[in-house]
Amino acid sequence: MSVTGATAGGAQEETRGEAQEGAARVAERLAGHQRRFDAVFAEYFDTLSQQPLPRGAFVPDALGLVRDMSLRGGKRLRVALLHEAARLVTPDPVAGLDEAAISIELLQTHLLIHDDIIDDSATRRGAPSVYYAYRDRFADDPWTALGLAVLAGDLAAFLSMRALLTAPLPAQLRQAMTAVQSEAGADTVMGQFLDLERDFGPVPDLDALDTVADYKSARYSLLAPLKLGLLAAGEDPTAHAGELARYARLVGVSGQMRDDHLDLFGDADLLGKPAGADLRSGRRSYAVCAVLAATSGAEKDLVESALAERGCTQETVAHVRGIAERLGVDEELRARTRQIAEQASEVAAGWRGRWRQEAVDFFAHLPLWGTRRTG
Amino acid sequence: MSVTGATAGGAQEETRGEAQEGAARVAERLAGHQRRFDAVFAEYFDTLSQQPLPRGAFVPDALGLVRDMSLRGGKRLRVALLHEAARLVTPDPVAGLDEAAISIELLQTHLLIHDDIIDDSATRRGAPSVYYAYRDRFADDPWTALGLAVLAGDLAAFLSMRALLTAPLPAQLRQAMTAVQSEAGADTVMGQFLDLERDFGPVPDLDALDTVADYKSARYSLLAPLKLGLLAAGEDPTAHAGELARYARLVGVSGQMRDDHLDLFGDADLLGKPAGADLRSGRRSYAVCAVLAATSGAEKDLVESALAERGCTQETVAHVRGIAERLGVDEELRARTRQIAEQASEVAAGWRGRWRQEAVDFFAHLPLWGTRRTG
Repeated sequence: MSVTGATAGGAQEETRGEAQEGAARVAERLAGHQRRFDAVFAEYFDTLSQQPLPRGAFVPDALGLVRDMSLRGGKRLRVALLHEAARLVTPDPVAGLDEAAISIELLQTHLLIHDDIIDDSATRRGAPSVYYAYRDRFADDPWTALGLAVLAGDLAAFLSMRALLTAPLPAQLRQAMTAVQSEAGADTVMGQFLDLERDFGPVPDLDALDTVADYKSARYSLLAPLKLGLLAAGEDPTAHAGELARYARLVGVSGQMRDDHLDLFGDADLLGKPAGADLRSGRRSYAVCAVLAATSGAEKDLVESALAERGCTQETVAHVRGIAERLGVDEELRARTRQIAEQASEVAAGWRGRWRQEAVDFFAHLPLWGTRRTG
Repeated sequence: MSVTGATAGGAQEETRGEAQEGAARVAERLAGHQRRFDAVFAEYFDTLSQQPLPRGAFVPDALGLVRDMSLRGGKRLRVALLHEAARLVTPDPVAGLDEAAISIELLQTHLLIHDDIIDDSATRRGAPSVYYAYRDRFADDPWTALGLAVLAGDLAAFLSMRALLTAPLPAQLRQAMTAVQSEAGADTVMGQFLDLERDFGPVPDLDALDTVADYKSARYSLLAPLKLGLLAAGEDPTAHAGELARYARLVGVSGQMRDDHLDLFGDADLLGKPAGADLRSGRRSYAVCAVLAATSGAEKDLVESALAERGCTQETVAHVRGIAERLGVDEELRARTRQIAEQASEVAAGWRGRWRQEAVDFFAHLPLWGTRRTG
């Protein structure tokens, strides 16, 4: 793939003012997609709850929990990517995008429900995780709570597939879009295996960390919405498979780096939680691995024992953070994050001429907008 | 739906010899389908393991566990139903059946892996369950073992969908077949909720038990294979939706009744495990509910306290069984199982004239063959 993003508007050549303007436009468009989709998603669940269900309370209760967690859904970046991908091809309304968005967000709900079991997380999106909601309901029977949470996650996965398979689209298109989603589902599960494996055995190198971010996040959060939007708008994404995958991977990697950077170096007030969660839970994040690579002797031992300890104190976190800042890990990681985001922007800038300018601009600005976010 | 099965060959009018011959033919055809499919399934996993995978050991290990459990797969009744459903329409080879069979059995693997977590089951199909295989590997980290087992089940579900979505079939057909499978997946998860709910609150009535059996087993094990076989052979199953669903439900209900009957009244040597597992684990099976309905006073109290106790002794099981036999519950349940199997046979007998005789005969004999099995 040849990248020609160094021409006019290549992100790295923008002035600071242009970049800020671009970021503001990205934020505005995201907010618009989010508002619109949240109404679509609420309506989907209303329709679902009106369909005939077998007697009893457990199924409606599970659907209620799936609904509540789905509707507490943040920025809807995936949905925005889907719509903007269609706008690469056409400014006109495109059939099937709402169903694809519902499928994407239900897959996300599936992943989060099971993730919260795997991580034993009590909260998600500011409320109890589905697993802990069931633990409240079955306070003296935690294994039943666990089983119900596993099933609620499974239900979300099958509903995700069904949303696309019943979309009012030609069968050929429905089939192609469902194939993208099931592939994304399989890749993401593999990514979760890689994510767990990362914390066992030898310290992973950068390439291994990038592969985790790619499989675990980029493929379903970035690549699949891109492909689905193009497909719905009548474009064949396989003709551009390499560069779409490259864009998604770069955005996914830089986004993960930013998250990992914030986790160690971020402001606890802005994060809404104490810094150092990755260190405390033994997670070999980009930031943790960068600190390990930069330290030696007693300092390295300190980081390694903090990781092995699980649940180290905030004093230890502050100590590790101080060491990392002194060694320039903070700045180095920030620079690397920005560099990778710029590479992603260049990939998108290469789409000018082939696809519609305003949507290309969105994809070119998105990676750098992402690295500027603080929470 | 009008059932016209009382004509020649309607199962209930057969002589004992004819019925035995029919059962022998069913067993022979099942064995043939099983042999053939086991080779197809092994080849599928060989191909899968040759595809490029991300670095690391966790993903290949998970695929290996999914493979091992999938290939330890019993009679493959679902696969036989699929092939025989196609033979209702044509004796010629039908494209897509192998992929559909793989999808069906991978969905089954998904369900079993998660079921064994929900039930905390150590063994499945004569070897460690996937959950317990992971507990062996992570003896000092059972939560990681649990997480990996949840993910292995998820992986099987997405592979199940992918097997159909990549089948060498026209897109329209792939789409219709995947829709059947995702619907079956969602229904089965709902059935598992109903199954858990059955053991809470008031004792379920027969209709509620039938609904559990329908959702939890019949829809993915009987109805989906039937629909998939017909679809692959060029027949539209929606034109016969009511009777297909009725056949599947009746066969599913009679099969569950037989299993529940065997669990309480069966021969421990033939079962390969002590009788009364349902009673011991507090499961309100058909047999347990029938005993509850037939008893009163001190005898009913005994059954209720055995159920509530979880893990009652074999003496208690034998006591409950003795009471049930004295009250005729054993015979009554056996008769009811046979009656429902005969109703299923009548539904299938009604397909004569419309569909090919030899395959119709298979479906007409299958329910009664099922009730005769002892293990």
